[in-house]
Amino acid sequence: MRIFSTLIPSSTSFGHYLRSRLLSPAIIHPRPFSMAPSASTPEDSLRTSLAEKNAAVEAQGNNVRALKAAKASKPDIDAAIELLNGLKLEKTAIEKQLLATVGGSGPDASSNRDALVNTLERRLFYIPSFKIYRGVAGLYDYGPPGCSIKSNVLAFWRQHFVLEENMLEVDCPCVTPEVVLKASGHVDKFTDLMVKDEQTGTCYRADHLLKDFCNDKLQKDLSISSEVAAELKHVLAVLDDLSAEQLGEKIKQYGIKAPDTKNPLSDPFPFNLMFQTSIGPSGVSRGYMRPETAQGIFVNFKELYYYNGNKLPFAAAQIGQAFRNEISPRQGLLRVREFTLAEIEHFVDPEDKSHPKYSEVADLEFLMFPREEQMSGQSAKRIRLGEAVSKGTVNNETLGYFIGRVYLFLTRLGIDKDRLRFRQHLANEMAHYAADCWDAEIECSYGWIECVGIADRSAYDLRAHSEKSGVSLVAHEKFAEPKEVEKLVISPVKKELGLAFKGSQKNVVEALEAMDEKEALEMKAALESKGELDFYVCTLEKNVTIKKSMVTISKEKKKEHQRVFTPSVIEPSFGIGRIIYCLFEHSFYTRPSKAGDERLSVFRFPPLVAPIKCTVFPLVQNQKYEEVAKIISKSLTAAGISHKIDITGTSIGKRYARTDELGVPFAITVDDESSVTIRERDSKDQIRVSVEEAATVVKSVTDGLSTWDEVWSQFPHHVTGASEE
Amino acid sequence: MRIFSTLIPSSTSFGHYLRSRLLSPAIIHPRPFSMAPSASTPEDSLRTSLAEKNAAVEAQGNNVRALKAAKASKPDIDAAIELLNGLKLEKTAIEKQLLATVGGSGPDASSNRDALVNTLERRLFYIPSFKIYRGVAGLYDYGPPGCSIKSNVLAFWRQHFVLEENMLEVDCPCVTPEVVLKASGHVDKFTDLMVKDEQTGTCYRADHLLKDFCNDKLQKDLSISSEVAAELKHVLAVLDDLSAEQLGEKIKQYGIKAPDTKNPLSDPFPFNLMFQTSIGPSGVSRGYMRPETAQGIFVNFKELYYYNGNKLPFAAAQIGQAFRNEISPRQGLLRVREFTLAEIEHFVDPEDKSHPKYSEVADLEFLMFPREEQMSGQSAKRIRLGEAVSKGTVNNETLGYFIGRVYLFLTRLGIDKDRLRFRQHLANEMAHYAADCWDAEIECSYGWIECVGIADRSAYDLRAHSEKSGVSLVAHEKFAEPKEVEKLVISPVKKELGLAFKGSQKNVVEALEAMDEKEALEMKAALESKGELDFYVCTLEKNVTIKKSMVTISKEKKKEHQRVFTPSVIEPSFGIGRIIYCLFEHSFYTRPSKAGDERLSVFRFPPLVAPIKCTVFPLVQNQKYEEVAKIISKSLTAAGISHKIDITGTSIGKRYARTDELGVPFAITVDDESSVTIRERDSKDQIRVSVEEAATVVKSVTDGLSTWDEVWSQFPHHVTGASEE
Repeated sequence: MRIFSTLIPSSTSFGHYLRSRLLSPAIIHPRPFSMAPSASTPEDSLRTSLAEKNAAVEAQGNNVRALKAAKASKPDIDAAIELLNGLKLEKTAIEKQLLATVGGSGPDASSNRDALVNTLERRLFYIPSFKIYRGVAGLYDYGPPGCSIKSNVLAFWRQHFVLEENMLEVDCPCVTPEVVLKASGHVDKFTDLMVKDEQTGTCYRADHLLKDFCNDKLQKDLSISSEVAAELKHVLAVLDDLSAEQLGEKIKQYGIKAPDTKNPLSDPFPFNLMFQTSIGPSGVSRGYMRPETAQGIFVNFKELYYYNGNKLPFAAAQIGQAFRNEISPRQGLLRVREFTLAEIEHFVDPEDKSHPKYSEVADLEFLMFPREEQMSGQSAKRIRLGEAVSKGTVNNETLGYFIGRVYLFLTRLGIDKDRLRFRQHLANEMAHYAADCWDAEIECSYGWIECVGIADRSAYDLRAHSEKSGVSLVAHEKFAEPKEVEKLVISPVKKELGLAFKGSQKNVVEALEAMDEKEALEMKAALESKGELDFYVCTLEKNVTIKKSMVTISKEKKKEHQRVFTPSVIEPSFGIGRIIYCLFEHSFYTRPSKAGDERLSVFRFPPLVAPIKCTVFPLVQNQKYEEVAKIISKSLTAAGISHKIDITGTSIGKRYARTDELGVPFAITVDDESSVTIRERDSKDQIRVSVEEAATVVKSVTDGLSTWDEVWSQFPHHVTGASEE
Repeated sequence: MRIFSTLIPSSTSFGHYLRSRLLSPAIIHPRPFSMAPSASTPEDSLRTSLAEKNAAVEAQGNNVRALKAAKASKPDIDAAIELLNGLKLEKTAIEKQLLATVGGSGPDASSNRDALVNTLERRLFYIPSFKIYRGVAGLYDYGPPGCSIKSNVLAFWRQHFVLEENMLEVDCPCVTPEVVLKASGHVDKFTDLMVKDEQTGTCYRADHLLKDFCNDKLQKDLSISSEVAAELKHVLAVLDDLSAEQLGEKIKQYGIKAPDTKNPLSDPFPFNLMFQTSIGPSGVSRGYMRPETAQGIFVNFKELYYYNGNKLPFAAAQIGQAFRNEISPRQGLLRVREFTLAEIEHFVDPEDKSHPKYSEVADLEFLMFPREEQMSGQSAKRIRLGEAVSKGTVNNETLGYFIGRVYLFLTRLGIDKDRLRFRQHLANEMAHYAADCWDAEIECSYGWIECVGIADRSAYDLRAHSEKSGVSLVAHEKFAEPKEVEKLVISPVKKELGLAFKGSQKNVVEALEAMDEKEALEMKAALESKGELDFYVCTLEKNVTIKKSMVTISKEKKKEHQRVFTPSVIEPSFGIGRIIYCLFEHSFYTRPSKAGDERLSVFRFPPLVAPIKCTVFPLVQNQKYEEVAKIISKSLTAAGISHKIDITGTSIGKRYARTDELGVPFAITVDDESSVTIRERDSKDQIRVSVEEAATVVKSVTDGLSTWDEVWSQFPHHVTGASEE
């Protein structure tokens, strides 16, 4: 006999697994798309004009040929040729316009990215891993400044989330036994569809090939009709939802071949993205490198709940490496095979998703892109968070609270708030069990990139591990006084069932006991009205006939002293590498050198993330100035300001350029024994302060206690001499 | 023709690879051992007495039986029995003494460890990973306080090494392609010897089985002679040097069976300890989870050298996960399959290993255990570092500097300086290319544990990657003016060689060109005196005869503008998890509760590593006190002091005990609206300060600006009431 109530999670609420694939392939949305046939766009009318102009060129060409064949007079032929040339010019003009319309970001964006990547690689912000062995796609090292930025971002994350919210931080291994990832669904479902070159065996992501084909056609083939263009755009829009069969059909239909060899391709088949390994020497214990850090928290729920004094809500957090064996990594730091995730699992009573600190973020206003707006082809708009929550656009306060905290986190790091939006998952993107899901997307030269996922995953994960491990992962709410509750009781009559089903009796009993409340009540009603009914037993894979005598279903009243339930989990999950890459793009700019002969690179990192906060430059090589530099260095160390002395004889202008390129916000130049100058990176403005004050001034600005403008108004300004910059 | 000089590293200096196995199995040395027959020890004489007493008991037993058989008089028989009983008592006494001598740390140490482990697991310092799935041997999670300690230790490491020494920090992936670990030697040599249960296939570490057998015999079998005991001890001493064949012989000789089944065991065979995986979807690109972080630095040498302005010396550093698929992990947190390493690679000119900051550590004095002392059976002794370096016991200043810095690092974390020693590697422990190697060993209940390895690895690693990748990893020293140098020139005469060796000509030419200076000069001498000589060509696997006409070897003078050389690398490598575990042991103690009915656990962590620095307790549940607690909390936050408020109604004594168990150094108790008390964890002393002063006082002590004793002398003392503790 099994009693149904809130005590026991109903097993039918588990369904097929489809985890929202945070930081996964298809999350780059170059433009909001609409599933409905779109209104006539400039692109459409250009394509139509082009088709018309092509027809006119062809007709006039025929005309010229006909005139020549008919040996018409020279003036007639010349006039016809002139007309033809005019038409060709018009055609070229339309082609140019069309190219500009469909070509996207164009050469400007990509040359800007080239300048950025050049600076990043030259100054070792990152390095392709194992470069001397020609590297491995999708693996990158952080060099010294990148490493420092990463550790600043993580320290701020820990401060902003773990410490301010009293989260329970854990640190679990990357090597994970199969059973854990079987329970989470990754072993069965964490796949991408792959096709193989039938001759060489080279592997490709099926959706990438289709996507590249469509984009290429749209951007380079000016001859396609606006109907074909619309179809290709539709394919791009639904790309993530296509099944293996559908993808295969499209690849066949468009005649897509292996890009390198033009050989035919296999049908698409799923490839699991986890790096597989073997734990221990026997070779029989399969393991994987974790694809996310979250599972380490879920399996520890019981311990953490106890540690928190058996109280909800509480959040656990983890920072660590995660691994995805991408089929063909592209897009530099955005799609990599190993990356740092910072994940939070906030466990909450599903019946109370309020948040005590919600009011602190409710008045924030930023770009949100709710489901409705996406479906109706609108764009993201500025919405007050409190309004989105109260209207129910955002499912609940806790989810809203985290959206607000993520907004604060990203903008304080230096992400441009106008290139940051929170996009709600469409129904087809979201796992069936999820209550709501929003992605923080940051715009960069690759489009809008998902950098943080904030999902209300309901009770899915804890239930999955409860079921697989047999350890109950639940929370308790003690009642002040016992409550009377009505419970459904299903009692199979084993004697009758045994007579009817013999060896299959056990299967039928289990199936009866596994019914949820709705099913059981329907059966009760049917048995009472008709005396019997057909009942599908999945372990037998057939229907059996259940008679009234075989089971009693009743509601009974019981006294309960506590409520036992599976907590919901709200999961903000941060792709640290992606955030850092977007930060690079948002912080980067170039400006002309003083001589005007070259463009100098600058990163406008806020002091919080800058790899070092300050440089100290003796203006010329001179022992007295070096002594002063050392004194200042000591006081900076005492104030906890990371800095570097540069005593090379290089010109001060070159030293400023070098330090700007690393995004160092302040430079102290020693040009005197009693006072020095402090230069701010972006304005290049300089003030003069006494040697004693230098560290204090820099500290107050880097700690955010005062702004540069305030400091600028307090101290005498220093005007640069010709020799200096 | 190949020219030999310092320009080109001689390839014969590469040899068989045997990387000193940092943090590896055999590094626990329960006692210094001596290879020479040891002088008679108390244990020896006890074994001898026991053997004599056994013989006496047997003889007297025979005597009694003879008297009985001869029907001697009762008084005679009784007297003989009394003598026998007396002998038996004496035998038992000797057995007890012997047990006490050989039993090692005994029940006391292990009950202390039980209390520690109980506290660590109960308070979630760590958790066996995937516990709800019954865990995986050798994998552990850090829970909230453990995680916080780990991040404090790493932050201090970064401060103490990376920032203070201006090191270049990098962050490389864990997934590593095979070629890199082939070059480093790990693919071929990073193995442990394993035996299999011949029936069940269960795997065991061969040396573990032999070690356990020897220790068991020595500690539990009192009947063995002192000769046998000496042999077993010798086996333990040389365990790490035994080949697969020798281990197999010993296992056969002693009749060692599979511990669980008593089945026969296979011969020992090598098992590679790296977790293997496959990179990308094709399955053909083999990869491993890195067994150390160092290789990521070596392969980036060229980039980092350039970043450092092409100047030596410089150090690169990396903190990250490393993986070793141990055959059978034991000893809790000390032998795990995934762990955090912090590694430094300090690149230095092999001709100048001085260090500018060496004088800052030269006067440190601590326990050192040089090779000589180990070989002659002495124990570690207190030596001034400067003396060890100047006497040449420590190979060079830079190595000495790092030994000193490691000493400061560990003791500042709270490692007991009397249970910390620096042990030099014996010749047989050290890789053939290493110049010198010292381990920081920390004593805990498992013996002396290697926690940091500090090795001068000479040019081995850079040369290995240079050779494998074909990318030259060298440094340059520009001469102020060109120098005339003498160079060895080997010119094989290809025509002659072709006539003599035909198809094998190329192999012979390469072998001739690959000779180092010494070999070449010997050949030159032999050719001049005898006209020919036998020469081994390894690629042909045979000797060939080289005649005078086949090669000219000469010394030529050349002008050089720079010196090109492969830097040496000095590598301090820290096992962070091991340091933390030893810190747990050194910080843990128990003391009686006030009522005296139980023992309370305390961790005496210094503020630097304590998971939180301060707790705030309103003495009783009361709104006014809670307001004061909030004010203090705000000022602690402003001062950057991590803390927690505990407003539960639990007795203040229980709250103190709870916080002591986490090693929180200070507790502020609010028992008044204008002043509060501050309690120091270890002394339990309390002072009274104003609400305004509380945060400042705690900050000054946690930051090390003042000591508790100083604070104690400045503020009024608070005497605890009966209700409070």
